[in-house]
Amino acid sequence: MTNFSAVILAAGSGTRMKSEIPKVLHKLSGKTLLKWVIDSVSKLKPDNIVIVLGHKAALVEKSLANLNVKIVYQREQKGSAHALLQAKSALTNYKGNILVISGDVPLIRSSTISSLLKSGIKNGNCATVLSTIVNEPFGYGRIVKNGLNFEAIIEEKDASKEQKNIKEINSGIYCFDSGIWEILSKIKPNNVKKEYYVTDSIAILKSEGKSVGLYKTDDSSEVKGINNRKELAEAESILQDRKIQELFAQGVSFIDPKSVYISADAQIGQDTIIYPRAYIANNVKIGKNCTIEGDSYIADSKIADDVFISYSYVRGAVIEKGCHIGPFSHIRPESHLKEGVKVGNFSEIKKSVIKKGAKVNHLSYIGDANIGEAVNIGAGTITCNFDGFKKHKTEIGDNVFVGSNVNLVAPIKVGKNVLIAAGSTITHDIAPHQLAIARAKQQHLSKEVLKTFKK
Amino acid sequence: MTNFSAVILAAGSGTRMKSEIPKVLHKLSGKTLLKWVIDSVSKLKPDNIVIVLGHKAALVEKSLANLNVKIVYQREQKGSAHALLQAKSALTNYKGNILVISGDVPLIRSSTISSLLKSGIKNGNCATVLSTIVNEPFGYGRIVKNGLNFEAIIEEKDASKEQKNIKEINSGIYCFDSGIWEILSKIKPNNVKKEYYVTDSIAILKSEGKSVGLYKTDDSSEVKGINNRKELAEAESILQDRKIQELFAQGVSFIDPKSVYISADAQIGQDTIIYPRAYIANNVKIGKNCTIEGDSYIADSKIADDVFISYSYVRGAVIEKGCHIGPFSHIRPESHLKEGVKVGNFSEIKKSVIKKGAKVNHLSYIGDANIGEAVNIGAGTITCNFDGFKKHKTEIGDNVFVGSNVNLVAPIKVGKNVLIAAGSTITHDIAPHQLAIARAKQQHLSKEVLKTFKK
Amino acid sequence: MTNFSAVILAAGSGTRMKSEIPKVLHKLSGKTLLKWVIDSVSKLKPDNIVIVLGHKAALVEKSLANLNVKIVYQREQKGSAHALLQAKSALTNYKGNILVISGDVPLIRSSTISSLLKSGIKNGNCATVLSTIVNEPFGYGRIVKNGLNFEAIIEEKDASKEQKNIKEINSGIYCFDSGIWEILSKIKPNNVKKEYYVTDSIAILKSEGKSVGLYKTDDSSEVKGINNRKELAEAESILQDRKIQELFAQGVSFIDPKSVYISADAQIGQDTIIYPRAYIANNVKIGKNCTIEGDSYIADSKIADDVFISYSYVRGAVIEKGCHIGPFSHIRPESHLKEGVKVGNFSEIKKSVIKKGAKVNHLSYIGDANIGEAVNIGAGTITCNFDGFKKHKTEIGDNVFVGSNVNLVAPIKVGKNVLIAAGSTITHDIAPHQLAIARAKQQHLSKEVLKTFKK
Repeated sequence: MTNFSAVILAAGSGTRMKSEIPKVLHKLSGKTLLKWVIDSVSKLKPDNIVIVLGHKAALVEKSLANLNVKIVYQREQKGSAHALLQAKSALTNYKGNILVISGDVPLIRSSTISSLLKSGIKNGNCATVLSTIVNEPFGYGRIVKNGLNFEAIIEEKDASKEQKNIKEINSGIYCFDSGIWEILSKIKPNNVKKEYYVTDSIAILKSEGKSVGLYKTDDSSEVKGINNRKELAEAESILQDRKIQELFAQGVSFIDPKSVYISADAQIGQDTIIYPRAYIANNVKIGKNCTIEGDSYIADSKIADDVFISYSYVRGAVIEKGCHIGPFSHIRPESHLKEGVKVGNFSEIKKSVIKKGAKVNHLSYIGDANIGEAVNIGAGTITCNFDGFKKHKTEIGDNVFVGSNVNLVAPIKVGKNVLIAAGSTITHDIAPHQLAIARAKQQHLSKEVLKTFKK
Repeated sequence: MTNFSAVILAAGSGTRMKSEIPKVLHKLSGKTLLKWVIDSVSKLKPDNIVIVLGHKAALVEKSLANLNVKIVYQREQKGSAHALLQAKSALTNYKGNILVISGDVPLIRSSTISSLLKSGIKNGNCATVLSTIVNEPFGYGRIVKNGLNFEAIIEEKDASKEQKNIKEINSGIYCFDSGIWEILSKIKPNNVKKEYYVTDSIAILKSEGKSVGLYKTDDSSEVKGINNRKELAEAESILQDRKIQELFAQGVSFIDPKSVYISADAQIGQDTIIYPRAYIANNVKIGKNCTIEGDSYIADSKIADDVFISYSYVRGAVIEKGCHIGPFSHIRPESHLKEGVKVGNFSEIKKSVIKKGAKVNHLSYIGDANIGEAVNIGAGTITCNFDGFKKHKTEIGDNVFVGSNVNLVAPIKVGKNVLIAAGSTITHDIAPHQLAIARAKQQHLSKEVLKTFKK
Repeated sequence: MTNFSAVILAAGSGTRMKSEIPKVLHKLSGKTLLKWVIDSVSKLKPDNIVIVLGHKAALVEKSLANLNVKIVYQREQKGSAHALLQAKSALTNYKGNILVISGDVPLIRSSTISSLLKSGIKNGNCATVLSTIVNEPFGYGRIVKNGLNFEAIIEEKDASKEQKNIKEINSGIYCFDSGIWEILSKIKPNNVKKEYYVTDSIAILKSEGKSVGLYKTDDSSEVKGINNRKELAEAESILQDRKIQELFAQGVSFIDPKSVYISADAQIGQDTIIYPRAYIANNVKIGKNCTIEGDSYIADSKIADDVFISYSYVRGAVIEKGCHIGPFSHIRPESHLKEGVKVGNFSEIKKSVIKKGAKVNHLSYIGDANIGEAVNIGAGTITCNFDGFKKHKTEIGDNVFVGSNVNLVAPIKVGKNVLIAAGSTITHDIAPHQLAIARAKQQHLSKEVLKTFKK
C-alpha cells in the first residue's frame, strides 16, 4: 500500500439526529460510526490517523481511548476546510498523501479508499475526488465533466437546470497531496454561513492548473453520510443485507433473512439454520449444523457445532458441541456448558461450569456453581449463592441426582453419586454416595380442623 | 373552524372481510376503523356527528357508548344516498355544511377534512368532492375535467377508454351545503342493484347549474377504504410507517424499524433505542434514554427515563427511572416499580408496589404485595396470595433479605431488616430484625437404606 | 386426468448450496425440495414416479422411505439427458406420456403440470416444453418463435443479441411421449463439459419433423430452480406470500403479515388474529376467534376456537376451546388441555391431561400427570416425575387446591377436594377431602444468634 495519512472530520454536532449523543458516537452493528471509519482506514495501515473533534469533543475522545490516533480540536464550527486545517499541526512536514474523510460515512470499504489513493498517485494528482452515481442527486455537489475530463464540482444552489440532472456526485471524500495546506489557506468563506469548505479547494487547484482527478465507486451506499435517525436505520439495513449475502454464500440458511439481525462481526458455520427473528449481537461465533430458533439473543459467545438454541438469551458463554438450550433459557456471562449439556425452560445459568451430559431442565437457577458430569438438576432447584453480602460457590460431583425444589445453600460441596431428596434445603456438605434429605413429615388432617390451622 | 356536521356511513356489511364482526369494528392500531374516522372528525369540533348504522347495528352501537354522537339506522341496504338520507331527521333545520364520509376510511387526516370544508365554503359550493391521484384507478369513479373545471364523476362501467386512463379519482368523501337533502330525493336507482348513490348528487347539482367543486389531497393513502383483510393489513403498515417517521424525527432510534410495532398513540422519548421486534401496544409512554430489547410487549404503561426492558411482557404498570426488567419478566397490571428496581428472569409481578432499589431477580411470583426499599427477594420465592377463595396482601419492610424458595403465606407482615432462611414457608408475621426459619433437619443416609425410604 | 409417468431428476450435487446435505433435501416450509415436487406430481395420480438419484443417493433415498416411487441411479454426472436415460429401465414398455421435471423446483403447482400434460396430448406433441416469462432472462434457454410457432430453444451462449432480449424461457420441465427414449440416444455431448442435455431433444425432434409444442405458465415463480441459499430463502418468501393471501381471503387477520411465518399446511379459522411474529410450523390447525400473540411457536398441534396464546412454545398438543396460554408458557408433546384451561407464565406442561377449568398459573412443571377439573396448581409446584431411572405418574382429582412450591413425588394419587399446604413435599397418596401438610415449624431467632446458625 502507498504511504498516506488520514484526517477524519468528526467535529460536527449532527443536530438532525436530535440527540444528546454526538452524531459520530451513534452505533451501527454495535460500533460507533466513527469507529467504522477508523477501522476501514486502519486496515490500510496509514502513517497517521488524525481525528478532528469539536462538538462534545470530550465524549468522543473518551470513545477513542487506546486507539492509535492523533486528536486535534476545531473550537469553532467554521466549515470543513477550517476543520481540516486544524489537522495541519499534527502532520507538519508530512510528505505523503492525505486522505480526507468524514466520520459519518461508516459504510465505506477499505478497498474503495485504497483504490482512491492509488488512482490519485498513479495520475500524479494534487487532489482526487471520490465520486459515485446516485438516483436522486438533489442536494449533492454534481461532478461536471468536459467529455471525459473532470471539470468542476457544482453545488446544488449554483447548478444550472442541466447540471441538476447530473447523477454523478461528490462523496466528500478526497485524496490530496501535501500541497493541500497551502491551498486551504486560499479558500474564502463566500457563502451565507461564512464557512470554509474543502470542496472549494478543487476549483482553486483547477484555476492554478494543477492536476485534479476523479475516482468513481459503483456502490453509492458506501459514501452515504448519516445525518438523521432514518439514515442510521437505513445504513443498518445495508449492513444487514451485506452480511446475509456473505453468509448465504458460505452455506448458512435463513428461513426469513429480513427478520433476523446479524452483527457484521458474526461468524456462522456451514449448514447452520437460522430461523426467523434471531438476534446475533457482537462477538459471536457459531459452529456448523447448529439450529437457532425463534427470538433468541446471542452476544459475546462461542457456540460449537450441532448446538440447538431456541427462544433463549445467551451472553458471554462458551457452549460446546451438541448442547441443547431452551426454549426460554438464560445463559449468563462466564458460563461454560460442556458437550451435550441440556438447559431447559425457565432455567438460568450464571458464572458456572456444567460438565458433560448434565441436565438443568426446568425452572432452576444455577449460579457460581460447578456441576459434575451427568448430573440431573431437578425442577425448581436453586443454588442459594448470595447471603446478602457476598456470593459463594456450589460444587456438585459427577452423577448426582438433585430432586425438585431443592435449595443448595452455598458455600456447599456435594460428593459424587449423591441423591438429594426433593424439597430439601441443603446447608451441610454431603459425602459421596449418600442420600441427603431435609424434609418434614407429611400429615393428613380432616378439613374440619382447617379453621384452626393457618393454611 | 367553520360550522359543520358530519354524517358517517357505517351501515355496510363488509362481506369481503369474511368476518362475524362488522367491518367498521375491525381494528387498526388497537382502535376500530369507525373510531378512527370519528376521532379525525371530532378534532374539528363539528356541531353534530351522525352515524348511520345498519349491519349488526347493535354491536356497532355498543362500541359507541359514551361518545357524543347521534345514531340513526338504515334498515335496508339501498345504497349510500339512501343511507345518508337516514341522517336527515337528526339534522332537521341544520344550516351548516354536511361532511359525508364512510366509516371505513381510517387513515383520513383532520387537516384534510378541514381543507375540504374550507375549500367548499370559500368557493360557495353546493358540493365539494375530495379527490386524489392513484396509480391504479381501476374501479374508482374518475374525475373528468374540462380544462381546469370539474365536469363529472364517471364510474368505471360508464368510462370511455380515454376516461379510464384518468388517475384522479373520487374518494367518496364530500362536503355538501344544507341543500343536499332536497337533491338526495331526486336520485334514482338506475343501476343493476337498484340502489341510490350519493355520487349521483354531483350530476344532479351540475344539471341544475349549481356550483360543484373539487379538493384534491396529495396523499392517496388517506382515502383508502378497507374492504378486506389485506387492505386492513396494508393500512396498519401505512400507520406504522407514519409513526416511525414521526419518532425518527423526534430522536428515537430503531435498529430495524420494519420489525417493530408501535401504536399510533405511543409516546417515546429522545435517545431511546428500540431494538428489533418490540411491540408497543396502546397507551404507552416511554421516557428518554431507555432501551427496549427483543420481542418485548408493552401496553398501558408509563415507563420513565433510563429504563432497560428486555424480552419481557409489561401491561398496566408504572416503571420508574432506571429500572431493569428482564429478560423474560412479566409485569402485570397495577404494578408500580419505583426507582432502580430490578426484576429478573422468570419473575412475575402483579398488583404490587416494589420500592426503591429492591430486587426480584429470579423465578419469583410477587402478587398483591408491598415490598420495601432495598429488599432482596431470593430465587423461587412465592407470595401465596390466594387461599382458593380470595386474595391476601403480603407486606415486607425495608432491607429484608428473603432466601430462596421461600413461601410467604398471605396475609402476612414481615418487619424491616428481617432475614428469612431459604426454603422456609412463612405463615406467621415476623417482627423487625428477626431471623425467621422453617426448615427440617438435614439427614444423610447410606443409599442402601434407600429402598426402604420413599424418595 | 390423462395417463402419465413422471421422472424426477434429483441426482445433482448442488455445490452452490455449500452444504453437506444434498440440495434436494434442503427444506421449504418444513418439507424437502424433492418432496414438494413429488407431492405436486402425486396429486395428478401418475402411473409411475421414477426418481433419478446420484449425489449422496443413500441419504436422499432414506428420505423417500415409504413413498410409492421407483428409484434409479445415475452413477456418473453426465448431464440431464443421461440422467433421464437411467429411468428408461423403470418404464420399459410404458406407453403413456413422460413428465420430466427437476427435483429442485418446489414451487410448481399441480394445476400447471396438468395443463402442460393436457396441452401436449391435445396437440399430439412428441414433446411439450413448459415456458414462462421472466424479467431477467440471462442464463436461461430462450424460446425462439417464428410468428406464433415454437421454433427452438437457444441457450445463452448461442443466442444472438436479439435473441438475448427474449424474455420467454425454457423452464426445463417437459412432457414427452414414449418416443423420448429413442431420441435421447441421439443426443451428443457437444459442449465443454461433455454432458448430454435433455434440451437437445427438442432440436432433434424438430429436425425429424416431429410435433413439438409449448405451454406457458404465467407465474414464473413456479419454475424457479433452487441453486443456492439465497434462492432457497426467496422460495420460502414466495410460499409465505401465497399462504398469507390464502388466509386473508379466508378471513384471518394479520397485524403485520411480513413478520410472521405460517407453514404451507397450516389451517386457521375465521376471525383469528395473528399478531406480529408468530411462527406456525407444520401440522397445525387453529380454530376461529383465536388470538396468537407475540413470538409464539406452534407445531404439530390442534387448537380449538377462542384460544389465546401469547409468547409461548407449543408442540404436539391438543388445546380445547377457550384455553388461555402464556405469556411464556411451554406446552410439550402429548399434552391435552381441556376446555377453559389456563396455563400461565413460566409453566411447562408435558404429556399430561389438564381437565376443564384447571389452572397452572405460575412457575410450575406438570409432567406425566392427570389433573382434575377446576384444580388450582399453586405457583412453583413441581411434579417430581423422574426418579433418576424412570418416569412416574401424578394423579390429581377434581377441585384440588395445591399450595405454592409443593412437590408431588410420583407415583402419587391425590383424591378430589384435597387441599395441599404450601411448601409441602408430598410422597404419600392423599384420600379425598383431606388437608395434607409437610412443613417444618416456623421459628424466630434474634439475629445475634445468626453467627452460630448456618444460613
